[in-house]
Amino acid sequence: MFNPVEKLKEFIRQPSVSTDPKFRDGMKGAQEFVAGLFGSLGFKVDVVKTDLHPIILASHGTDASWPHVLIYGHYDVQPAEPLNLWKTPAFEPTIIGNRIYGRGAADNKGPLMTNIAAVAQLLAENPRLPLRITFLIEGEEEMGSPSFPKFLAAHQERLKSADFVYLSDTALPNENQVVITAGLRGLALFDVHLTGAKGDLHSGLHGGVLRNPIQALAEIISTLHTPEGRVNVPGFYDDVLEVEPWERAELNKLGADEKQYAEFLGIDTFYTTPGFSPFESSRFQPTLEFNGIGGGYQGEGTKTVIPSKAFAKISCRLVPNQQPDKIKKLVMDTICARTPKGVKLEFVDQHKGDPYVVVPPGRSNTPKDQSPVLARAFRAADAAVNEVWGRPPLYLREGGSVPIIADIKRVTGLDSVMFGLFLPEDNLHAPNESFNLEVMKKGIETTKRILAATAKR
Amino acid sequence: MFNPVEKLKEFIRQPSVSTDPKFRDGMKGAQEFVAGLFGSLGFKVDVVKTDLHPIILASHGTDASWPHVLIYGHYDVQPAEPLNLWKTPAFEPTIIGNRIYGRGAADNKGPLMTNIAAVAQLLAENPRLPLRITFLIEGEEEMGSPSFPKFLAAHQERLKSADFVYLSDTALPNENQVVITAGLRGLALFDVHLTGAKGDLHSGLHGGVLRNPIQALAEIISTLHTPEGRVNVPGFYDDVLEVEPWERAELNKLGADEKQYAEFLGIDTFYTTPGFSPFESSRFQPTLEFNGIGGGYQGEGTKTVIPSKAFAKISCRLVPNQQPDKIKKLVMDTICARTPKGVKLEFVDQHKGDPYVVVPPGRSNTPKDQSPVLARAFRAADAAVNEVWGRPPLYLREGGSVPIIADIKRVTGLDSVMFGLFLPEDNLHAPNESFNLEVMKKGIETTKRILAATAKR
Repeated sequence: MFNPVEKLKEFIRQPSVSTDPKFRDGMKGAQEFVAGLFGSLGFKVDVVKTDLHPIILASHGTDASWPHVLIYGHYDVQPAEPLNLWKTPAFEPTIIGNRIYGRGAADNKGPLMTNIAAVAQLLAENPRLPLRITFLIEGEEEMGSPSFPKFLAAHQERLKSADFVYLSDTALPNENQVVITAGLRGLALFDVHLTGAKGDLHSGLHGGVLRNPIQALAEIISTLHTPEGRVNVPGFYDDVLEVEPWERAELNKLGADEKQYAEFLGIDTFYTTPGFSPFESSRFQPTLEFNGIGGGYQGEGTKTVIPSKAFAKISCRLVPNQQPDKIKKLVMDTICARTPKGVKLEFVDQHKGDPYVVVPPGRSNTPKDQSPVLARAFRAADAAVNEVWGRPPLYLREGGSVPIIADIKRVTGLDSVMFGLFLPEDNLHAPNESFNLEVMKKGIETTKRILAATAKR
Repeated sequence: MFNPVEKLKEFIRQPSVSTDPKFRDGMKGAQEFVAGLFGSLGFKVDVVKTDLHPIILASHGTDASWPHVLIYGHYDVQPAEPLNLWKTPAFEPTIIGNRIYGRGAADNKGPLMTNIAAVAQLLAENPRLPLRITFLIEGEEEMGSPSFPKFLAAHQERLKSADFVYLSDTALPNENQVVITAGLRGLALFDVHLTGAKGDLHSGLHGGVLRNPIQALAEIISTLHTPEGRVNVPGFYDDVLEVEPWERAELNKLGADEKQYAEFLGIDTFYTTPGFSPFESSRFQPTLEFNGIGGGYQGEGTKTVIPSKAFAKISCRLVPNQQPDKIKKLVMDTICARTPKGVKLEFVDQHKGDPYVVVPPGRSNTPKDQSPVLARAFRAADAAVNEVWGRPPLYLREGGSVPIIADIKRVTGLDSVMFGLFLPEDNLHAPNESFNLEVMKKGIETTKRILAATAKR
């Protein structure tokens, strides 16, 4: 049996930034590392070519009468910039205390390694476990999984033979409380580009004559929220799913502390959807967010130009049952209508993802046709978490997005059991990302128990 | 006698970007070039050290009974970025047709070389010309001349012995019409920085919880103008000088065409101070402009962060009798009052400059105590321009800023004769800057005649 922490180090050392062509070697290294690891565990490994980054399928067990779990993960990571804010090198894993630092440590290499290690230990202890296991590890999660729909369509028969999906790419609220994610937000992303004059202009000679695209962009952006914090786009909330009473009750059990959360974020005032607490707002409500803005001179000192161009990067997080294409159109139409004269407007479309919701057994809104193996997995998770962590899991929707979960559901009908493993302080998508090794240890034990209990009786 | 175009090429080849420490060698090269050139013309040259870039003083003629002209110029240039938009290398002078291309060709190396060549030719033809000439060439104009006030205070006695200042760092409306600039706008510049959370955050996990500093910045910016185009800051227009009827009449003689101007800028709608044409607005009215904006992710693709920080670079162009410090305080106080909760506001102060106005002889508002040598210089300019260009000059205020002109006036009492030499199509402060060599030739002849007529009778 391999040492999970040492293997995780090897994995982090591969700088697998999927969005940046400079990291081609890192992507290849990560992919070969994953394929090699499954090979060494006796899995049948297929490296499925896509238009961009290959998807790895690794299978164990062939008896069609056994339950079949599809375990998802991704080997790509976010860009590490700004590098100057990292205290340790982004791609040189460094253990400090009970944490391992490095880009991808928590998203998703650490949690994925947790599940691989669990399976490896389980099969080492019980080589004849009556459970089919297929790992599906993609390399485009951080860029919106553009190759995934084509892959799903081509491999849907093989995937449909699974009973449910299992993954760890969601969050724990703290290291004592497991959350099984019952819903994910979707995504709709695009860029807005404005052009004023045909080139940058001297702000003295021409200032006072034309509309500055930075000003026009600010005017548009400033209209997209109400002062109270609602997205100010007609129709934006039309399809938002009502929150069930059991969901609010489950969230209350979390006992999250607003003061602590504000301190963690470093803010003195929340700005939520009106009528929702911060913890509710990020889980149950959609957003329209500005991920970046640029235009004109950004260096030291001054450059007195009226810039020709300005842009903003916009992302909406969507909740069930909002549809990304519909939301994109609503927001783009609104921006169009609110663009002042004197500037030209262009959109650059980016990726998107559907929101997702799954209801565990025994809730008021559990679907009547829920798969028995899925229900057994949820009950196994209840028991295993209770045993390993000393308290049962909470079932909560969360604010993040794993768009392929909804894609899988749409194409194959499979629901997902999302066992959260990263913590708020893990700094996902930010400098000094890290993963808690104590959580990893408990995660391995929990996944072992869940999979063991899901196997054929 | 030297060849002015060849000397100008040598001058442009020195990459003298004053704001960027990377160009230290270029600054030194430009300074040595200028000092060497005056040395070769028999001038007494002083290279005056400052805290940053030296100022060159070069004098000819010592008879205190002779009129004394102080000729101003600057050897520094704007940054050349974005370099990819240059069609020829920014610091390799290239002649195409009757234009010389290169950073600084028009601002200010070409016009300065025009005046140096005029003086060189004049003295070659008449070595005993009864005129004292002092060139004052600074190296910090493009960064707001931070060392100039200290220099002025230290050298005011020497400068006060001059009768007026002569310079070519302003614009011609077209190559057939000379404009002698009767006023300049001032400047007040600063940056606005907003901070939300203490670090960049995952927009899924935390989206919907806090105010995004990009949104807050846009909200602030969007309030700083009325929809009609006035600066929406209480008190901003309080000290704006009324426009004199002769100024509007002089501008009307220019016969500028709005349609052509819109085509030149590449816009389909003007956005001026209400009640002012584009040509009036940029000359007679102040502005509040956004020179740059930045925050969050600006690369290709997407990065789904809520950024911690966002900033904007703001510059106000001021008209007489607005005061930069007063305007900075008004705008900063307004921004302060309009900053929403949940973000921290900081200002980074940048440079400033007073606006300036001078009235030529014979106008309704000409000061009664105007210096006789200055009045003679203005009348000499009328005659020389008429002879060389076939029509008299127009006296117009312009939108650009040469803050040291107001500084000189304040400290020494000297007014300036500003003989414009660059054209709108010269692309100042922008890629593909160039200078018209035909204008240079006529400029040399005009300056020769003005200085000859200003000499002692």
